[in-house]
Amino acid sequence: MERITARYYIETPYALDKTAAVLAGEQSSGTFVAVPGETEELKNRFAARVEHIEPLETVSEPAMPGAASPDGLYRRALVEVSWSVENFGHNLPTLVSTLQGNLYEITQFTGLKLMDIHFPASYAAAYRGPQFGIEGCRSLTNVATGRPLIGTIIKPSVGLTPAQTAEIVGTLAQAGIDFIKDDELMASTANSHFEERVHAVMEVINRHADRTGKKVMYAFNISDEMDPMLRKYEHIVRSGGSCAMISLNSVGLAGSKRICDLGELAIHGHRNGWGMLNRHPLLGIEFPAYQKLWRLAGVDQLHVNGIQNKFWESDDSVVRSIASCLDPAPLDKPVLPVVSSGQWGGQAFETYRRTSTTDLLYMAGGGIMAHPGGAAAGVTALQQAWQAAVNGLTLHDAARQYPEFAQSVEKFGKLQFDRA
Amino acid sequence: MERITARYYIETPYALDKTAAVLAGEQSSGTFVAVPGETEELKNRFAARVEHIEPLETVSEPAMPGAASPDGLYRRALVEVSWSVENFGHNLPTLVSTLQGNLYEITQFTGLKLMDIHFPASYAAAYRGPQFGIEGCRSLTNVATGRPLIGTIIKPSVGLTPAQTAEIVGTLAQAGIDFIKDDELMASTANSHFEERVHAVMEVINRHADRTGKKVMYAFNISDEMDPMLRKYEHIVRSGGSCAMISLNSVGLAGSKRICDLGELAIHGHRNGWGMLNRHPLLGIEFPAYQKLWRLAGVDQLHVNGIQNKFWESDDSVVRSIASCLDPAPLDKPVLPVVSSGQWGGQAFETYRRTSTTDLLYMAGGGIMAHPGGAAAGVTALQQAWQAAVNGLTLHDAARQYPEFAQSVEKFGKLQFDRA
Repeated sequence: MERITARYYIETPYALDKTAAVLAGEQSSGTFVAVPGETEELKNRFAARVEHIEPLETVSEPAMPGAASPDGLYRRALVEVSWSVENFGHNLPTLVSTLQGNLYEITQFTGLKLMDIHFPASYAAAYRGPQFGIEGCRSLTNVATGRPLIGTIIKPSVGLTPAQTAEIVGTLAQAGIDFIKDDELMASTANSHFEERVHAVMEVINRHADRTGKKVMYAFNISDEMDPMLRKYEHIVRSGGSCAMISLNSVGLAGSKRICDLGELAIHGHRNGWGMLNRHPLLGIEFPAYQKLWRLAGVDQLHVNGIQNKFWESDDSVVRSIASCLDPAPLDKPVLPVVSSGQWGGQAFETYRRTSTTDLLYMAGGGIMAHPGGAAAGVTALQQAWQAAVNGLTLHDAARQYPEFAQSVEKFGKLQFDRA
Repeated sequence: MERITARYYIETPYALDKTAAVLAGEQSSGTFVAVPGETEELKNRFAARVEHIEPLETVSEPAMPGAASPDGLYRRALVEVSWSVENFGHNLPTLVSTLQGNLYEITQFTGLKLMDIHFPASYAAAYRGPQFGIEGCRSLTNVATGRPLIGTIIKPSVGLTPAQTAEIVGTLAQAGIDFIKDDELMASTANSHFEERVHAVMEVINRHADRTGKKVMYAFNISDEMDPMLRKYEHIVRSGGSCAMISLNSVGLAGSKRICDLGELAIHGHRNGWGMLNRHPLLGIEFPAYQKLWRLAGVDQLHVNGIQNKFWESDDSVVRSIASCLDPAPLDKPVLPVVSSGQWGGQAFETYRRTSTTDLLYMAGGGIMAHPGGAAAGVTALQQAWQAAVNGLTLHDAARQYPEFAQSVEKFGKLQFDRA
C-alpha cells in the first residue's frame, strides 16, 4: 500500500530514535499505555513508520516549553515519518489531523515543525488541483508569458464605498492593470455591501473589456461562513467576474475546498494568519508543505510575501516559497505565486535575479495607489520595472530610462532605505 | 456603533504606543504609505483604535525573529484594540482575519498572542451558539447534575473493524459509560468504512437504549471535506445517533459552523493542532479567545486537555480553560469542557479541587481500555473516582474504599509517578 511521508524538524531532550517513535505512535495506533487489540497485524497495517532520522545541532536551551532535559541538552533533527494512505483515504482534514494534530502538544518535543509532505502521484491524482493555475490566469487576463501579471489591492483597505472602489478600478483598468483585489479586511462592510461592490466594479470592468478585449481580473473577497460564500461566489459568476478571494486560514480547508470545487472562478488564496503558523523556527509548518495542501484543495493563486517585504520574513524564505509553488509536484499543476507586501517595482530586479521567473502575480498596493503621478502612473512604473528587470537593466538604469519608474524610486526607494 | 475589543500580549523592540498604532493601522485602513482616500471621516468610522496599553516586563532577547532593537531591549505589554462591528458584520472568518490575520507577520513585533476577545452582547446575540451545550448533553445522555459525563476514546485509534468497535461499545455501554468517541485519527479507513461503523455501533447503542432507557452518546468523527461531512452527518441522524465530532482546526471555521448550524446532533469539538496555535508563550492565541470563536460557531463540547496530562500544558492553564468554557459570556450558553489526555480517574480529585465543577465530559482512553479488570472495570473506577472526589475523599481513601479504583491506582498511578 502506498504511503505518505512527512518531514519534520524536531527538537527533543531525549534520544532521537525514541522520540521519533513517540511521534509515530501518538499519530497512529498509540495511547499512553498499551491497550488490548493493538495486535501485530494491526500495527503492521496502520502504524506510522519512522523512515529516517538525520541528527542536526544540539543546543542548551529548549526552543519551547516542554520536558526538561536530563543532561541539559536538546537535540535537533530532521525526521521522516510515513503513513499508509489506508489510514485516512482522500480526506484532507483528517490527513492534516494525522500529520499535524496532537503532535505539537507532545511534551517530549521542545520544537516541531512540519517541513514538507511527499504524496505518491497516484494519491494526488484523485485531486483536480488548481482549475486555472498559471496558464488559466494568464489566459483569463490576456497576459502572454514573458512578464508577470501586475496587480494591486484596493486601499484604504476598509471604508471606501462601491462607487469609490469602482472609480479606482476604472483608473487602474485604463492604466493597463491585469489584476485587482479586495483587501482581506474588506468583506461586506456597512458602507460597501458585497453585492453592490460587485455590481459597481464589474460594470466598469465589463465596459472596459467590451472596449479593449481585456478583462481585468478582480478578486472579490468572499471569505465568510459557508452559505454566504456560496451566494457571493454565484453573484460574481452572474456578474461576469473571473476570480474570488478566500482567506484560507480563516475559512479553513473544508470550506475553501468546497469553493474551489465549483471551478468557475479562479481562486485567489490569501494566507493571512500565516505568521501564527510559521514565524517560530521550531513550531508550525513550512511553506512547501502548506502550499501542497492548498494546491490539492484547488487554490489557483497563493500568497508568498515578497522580496524586501514590510513583514519579518527573509528573502531566502520568499525565494523558496516561489520555487515550491512552481514545482510540478504533487500534481503537475503549479499554483501561481502571489508576490505582495511593501512592493513598488524596485524589488522586481532582485525578484527576477533570484527566481528567474515571470510566472508571478506581482502585487503592489501603496506602491501603485500612492505613486506621485497617481495610480495610472503607478501601474506604468511597475510594468517598466519588470520590463527592465527581464531585459537585464539595473534599478538605476531603469530609473534613468523610465520617468514613471524614476518617480517610484524617488518616493518609495527613499522610504524603503529609511526603514532598512 | 458597538465595538469588538481584542486583548493582545505583545513584545516589541520599539515604543509601545507607536507599535500598538502599527497594529491598529495594519488591521484597518493602513498600508506602508499614506494613500489618497484615507480621509479623516473614513478613519473615524473604520480605523481600529488602541484602547489601552499596560506595560509589562522588558527583556534582552526577542521571543521571535523580527526587527532588532535599537537599545537592545524588548518591551512587553498587554494591549487592547477595538474595531467597529461595521468593519466585518456577522462574518466570523473575516473577524478572524481582522483580529489575527497579518498581525503575526509584522516585523515590529517580536511576539504577539491574542489573549481574549470581548463581544458586545448585541453582536453575540446574532449567533445561536451551542444548540445543546451542558444541559442538552446531560439530557441526551441521562446524566443528572452532580457528576461529570464519563467518556472514553476507542483505542487503538486506527485499525479496528466496525465489528470490533461495536463489541467494545457493547462492553462499555454495559458498564454504564455515558459517552464514547472515535479517535481524531479515525475517519473512514480501509477496514472501517464510516457508514459501516455507524451501522454496527448504533445497532449496539440503540439496543442498549431500548433495554435500559439510556442512550450512550457516540461522537462519530465526521471530519472531512464539505459534502462527505454533510452525508456522514445525515447518516448519523438517520441511524439514531446523537453526536458528531469535528477536528475544528483541520476542518476550519466555515465548514464547522455549517455543520453546527444543522442543529440535530451535539457537536464534539476536537482541538487537535492546538499546540501549533498556542504552545509558544508569545505567539498565537490563548484558549479564552479561541473558545469564544468556536462557541459562537455553535460547538457544544470543546477539548481543554486535563490535569496532570500527558502533553506539555500546565495544570493552571487547563483550569483557566475550563473556567472560560463555563463563563456565560459571550452568549449566556456555556460550552461543555472535554477533559482528556492521560486521564485515568486519579486526576479527578485535583480536577474537582481546582475547578469545583462537575459540568465536565471527563474522558479516559487508555485509562479505561487498559484497566487490569477490563474496560467495564475501567468505567466503574472512573465513576468511583468522581464520586469520591465530590464526597471529599482523598485518592488514598478512595483506593481503600473502591476495589476497581484501587486497581487503577496500582496500574496508572505508578506509570504516572514514573513519568513525573
